[in-house]
Amino acid sequence: MEVGPRDGLQIESRTLTTDEKVRLIDALVAAGVREVEVGSFVNPKAVPAMADTEDVIKRLEPREGVTYRALWLNPKGLERAIAVGRVRLVGRLTCTASETFVKRNTNRSIDRTFAEMPEWITRYKEAGIKVNGMGMMAAFGCNFEGDIPQEKVIGLIERGMSVLADHGCKLEHQDLADTMGWANPRQIRRLVGAIHERWPDLTLKLHLHDTRGTAMANALAAMELGVCNFDAAIGGLGGCPFAGHKGAAGNVCTEDLVYMCEEMGIDTGIDLDALVGAAKLAEELVGHPLPGKVMKGGTLSRFRHH
Amino acid sequence: MEVGPRDGLQIESRTLTTDEKVRLIDALVAAGVREVEVGSFVNPKAVPAMADTEDVIKRLEPREGVTYRALWLNPKGLERAIAVGRVRLVGRLTCTASETFVKRNTNRSIDRTFAEMPEWITRYKEAGIKVNGMGMMAAFGCNFEGDIPQEKVIGLIERGMSVLADHGCKLEHQDLADTMGWANPRQIRRLVGAIHERWPDLTLKLHLHDTRGTAMANALAAMELGVCNFDAAIGGLGGCPFAGHKGAAGNVCTEDLVYMCEEMGIDTGIDLDALVGAAKLAEELVGHPLPGKVMKGGTLSRFRHH
Repeated sequence: MEVGPRDGLQIESRTLTTDEKVRLIDALVAAGVREVEVGSFVNPKAVPAMADTEDVIKRLEPREGVTYRALWLNPKGLERAIAVGRVRLVGRLTCTASETFVKRNTNRSIDRTFAEMPEWITRYKEAGIKVNGMGMMAAFGCNFEGDIPQEKVIGLIERGMSVLADHGCKLEHQDLADTMGWANPRQIRRLVGAIHERWPDLTLKLHLHDTRGTAMANALAAMELGVCNFDAAIGGLGGCPFAGHKGAAGNVCTEDLVYMCEEMGIDTGIDLDALVGAAKLAEELVGHPLPGKVMKGGTLSRFRHH
Repeated sequence: MEVGPRDGLQIESRTLTTDEKVRLIDALVAAGVREVEVGSFVNPKAVPAMADTEDVIKRLEPREGVTYRALWLNPKGLERAIAVGRVRLVGRLTCTASETFVKRNTNRSIDRTFAEMPEWITRYKEAGIKVNGMGMMAAFGCNFEGDIPQEKVIGLIERGMSVLADHGCKLEHQDLADTMGWANPRQIRRLVGAIHERWPDLTLKLHLHDTRGTAMANALAAMELGVCNFDAAIGGLGGCPFAGHKGAAGNVCTEDLVYMCEEMGIDTGIDLDALVGAAKLAEELVGHPLPGKVMKGGTLSRFRHH
């Protein structure tokens, strides 16, 4: 899932116009990206860059095989998502593996997060949305709390499963976010391996940040264990505004990840040269250099076709 | 081996003073780096940034367990290295896997490179230098020639072995350089695996470039197959001046690689925080941001010790 238009743009000092956002999303879809997080239904005072999410969504062409996604964090946000339509409504609960971070970020404890889940499940059910996913932030470590033990992550997944089961639902999709870029390939392998061993049918998705240069190696380690769902941001947009360090790198870069996959013989269905075009557009729109490498080094197609 | 002071600084628009180079090398060694390529004995008109290599070397303190290395490309360069002393004199032959690139870069064919090897072997022997290594540039692909088939790399290693054997020497160290950043983890695994299978006693070293964002993943793939020798450049300095693309990323970044190793439980013997200090010094000295990530995202030690 391409998260640049949401996770990336929300921290940029320059707010893109609705037109510009639509151009970027269209370029991504034209390159073959089939799932894009196009905005978030959050308080426009808190995140002004996302204030036009409804307008962006209304401007997007529905396209066969393409899923638009959006983020919401409270009931009002979900209502807005339902009202605007066109985005896939996913019944995904969220939690955070760091007590300190969840308090700073959402003013709630981990216990409180889980205590609120039944209300969310009811809310989703009332809207006819299947509830079968959970996201976990800071699953690999936290700048405010330090290392996150693997047993804690496993325990929180168990807890989410149990809440879902109590309400007749089943956890099928678990997303793990390396929100502050702590993960290393060995840790990825141990955690993914432990989850696969315990719950072989649970589909994992990773949200990786390149804060300390390991995002591509982490993605490789996860792919070697069969993980094939990743969030990524065009040009490497993004970073965590709440992580307490400025200037750090953002999300794993979409076109670099696609490049690595294609070079390894993994068909992504994406036109890499067109995707690099989208990365250059993103760079032009935000008005500063982005960390992506392939957009500077160039793809290999021009060296192979002559 | 840290190659920043040579491979990195040679392409910088600002030439560091001898004092500055010595400060940088001292900072690297103080952080625990035990092998540093400190300069090159090449034509000062062609590479003005390396004109003071003798002066740099004379200023370096000999330190127990620390090896200083330098590069030479012709007999005159070797003479200078022998004359100045203090650098380890390594009998390493060089070749290039791309016919087009070796012609552009050295005005020689691959055949001519191999034809000149006996003279080099004699020259090294006369100087009392053991000849047991070969370096290969563009071993993973070439901007001027395209893909480099694995069989070609294997064939060139065979050819080097045969030349060495004809002169009573044995190839013990093979360096493979991804000069233009074409390698991907799958290719690394196939090539390294094939070499290990054929010549289990041959020690490999990789010189990786992050031109297309895969350097860390490539290093991981190689380490998984037991490769434990890498060139790397502090801050991610470097890039190939002859590769035909500007603005592309340089060598795999030393402190990012050390960070990944240490986080995975691989003891490097290096003080990462001190190494990040050296990276910040490098950035200050060259006068522009370097691509290294850990120097911006920060190490994890401060989050763990409180």
